[in-house]
Amino acid sequence: MPGPIQSLARAAAILRLLAGGERRLGLSDISSSLGLAKGTAHGILRTLQQEGFVEQDTASGKYQLGAELLRLGNSYLDVHELRARALVWTDDLARSSGEAVYLGVLHQSGVLIVHHVFRPDDSRQVLEVGAMQPLHSSALGKVLAAYDPVAHSEAAENERPALTPRTITDTAGFEDVLELARTRGWASDLEETWEGVASVAAPILDRRRMPVGAVGITGAVERVCQEDGEIQARLVAAVRDCARAVSRDLGAGRF
Amino acid sequence: MPGPIQSLARAAAILRLLAGGERRLGLSDISSSLGLAKGTAHGILRTLQQEGFVEQDTASGKYQLGAELLRLGNSYLDVHELRARALVWTDDLARSSGEAVYLGVLHQSGVLIVHHVFRPDDSRQVLEVGAMQPLHSSALGKVLAAYDPVAHSEAAENERPALTPRTITDTAGFEDVLELARTRGWASDLEETWEGVASVAAPILDRRRMPVGAVGITGAVERVCQEDGEIQARLVAAVRDCARAVSRDLGAGRF
Repeated sequence: MPGPIQSLARAAAILRLLAGGERRLGLSDISSSLGLAKGTAHGILRTLQQEGFVEQDTASGKYQLGAELLRLGNSYLDVHELRARALVWTDDLARSSGEAVYLGVLHQSGVLIVHHVFRPDDSRQVLEVGAMQPLHSSALGKVLAAYDPVAHSEAAENERPALTPRTITDTAGFEDVLELARTRGWASDLEETWEGVASVAAPILDRRRMPVGAVGITGAVERVCQEDGEIQARLVAAVRDCARAVSRDLGAGRF
Repeated sequence: MPGPIQSLARAAAILRLLAGGERRLGLSDISSSLGLAKGTAHGILRTLQQEGFVEQDTASGKYQLGAELLRLGNSYLDVHELRARALVWTDDLARSSGEAVYLGVLHQSGVLIVHHVFRPDDSRQVLEVGAMQPLHSSALGKVLAAYDPVAHSEAAENERPALTPRTITDTAGFEDVLELARTRGWASDLEETWEGVASVAAPILDRRRMPVGAVGITGAVERVCQEDGEIQARLVAAVRDCARAVSRDLGAGRF
């Protein structure tokens, strides 16, 4: 079987480079970061520019990601069956819980947010669709790691950085968390990813009962948690109801 | 100067194909649509799949767009200076107008929506970020075609389909519309793109007074228009105020 096409793999590496860290990079930065000859990097950048994947700032000559990626990313959302099935249920969950709702799928070593319903109040909120959450500390990530073997290896084998003082980073502690998630059927994040923020999430299963994503709510720890520090039972129930409804819509049996 | 890298241009064509029309395509569909040998198409698809740009459905073997595009599209939004500068002003515009606000930039032969503020009520609304609007009939598109020579050629040289009975499709009529937009400093869409929907938009200029985008509001014709069928003057004023504020933030002089 032939290997990957080199110019294509290099183009993807350039796009990933532009998506992280600096985001506006000159030709020298790009070629030296990826160990490419300047001429090689320039040829790839010119083609990426022609296709709209990369834009060049006329003043500085630096490169940045192009608009075509946004258009294609939007088309990805349109084709996403899980997201389409979940739209109505996640709206209901936001209304009943009064909190922001996130729908996530495993992507690379994290959770990709494919749908976000704003908390139903008048506050200013930033749309998180397309953003990533960590597998090891977020409620969505723990659910995926607990139910999806691929997500589990990603979370188990990669570094689990301490994002707050409460992040669980050691292997035994992390495996206990996943075991608890499987026993309960849901996972929580009690200020383990962001200070002051708590989440609860449950798995979405397809007709083969395979985990295809996770849905959950996120909010201020003062609203989401009870006095004993655990997630409010009514919120756990609402999230699990939503996850079950979407799973049923995807053809999973009752559970 | 060397031409574009062939495998990269072909990969972009495959992604565009998957973003339009059918969205889930088999290897034969893809290779025949693009006039590629099956082996060639398969090699490109395998690499795109390894990079997360394409996903293959295990049941049908068909290909669809991959999650990495959503992640990169989101990074594009983060780097977008116009969008960053416009966030606060577009929120204010949604609040003062009571209607949905869109921020658009020229992309290929249309307007790419890079920011969307929901109408401030409790109604269910679909996020349009990443979606395209037509240059010839939408208010955002007319503004871009009136002020940006590249947008003008795209709109003038391409087909201008009748999307509703009110779409202006003939060349002379279209040029009159653009002339009016330049004279007034804004453009409207009176049920020319969607039945029952009216819009008004104004241009955003940068420090060189070049048009870099357009901002506008969209809503039910019954709310947005006066009895004589024209856009309400208070909404025109609110949209133009917003466009001026964002332009000033981008370094344009007072105008």
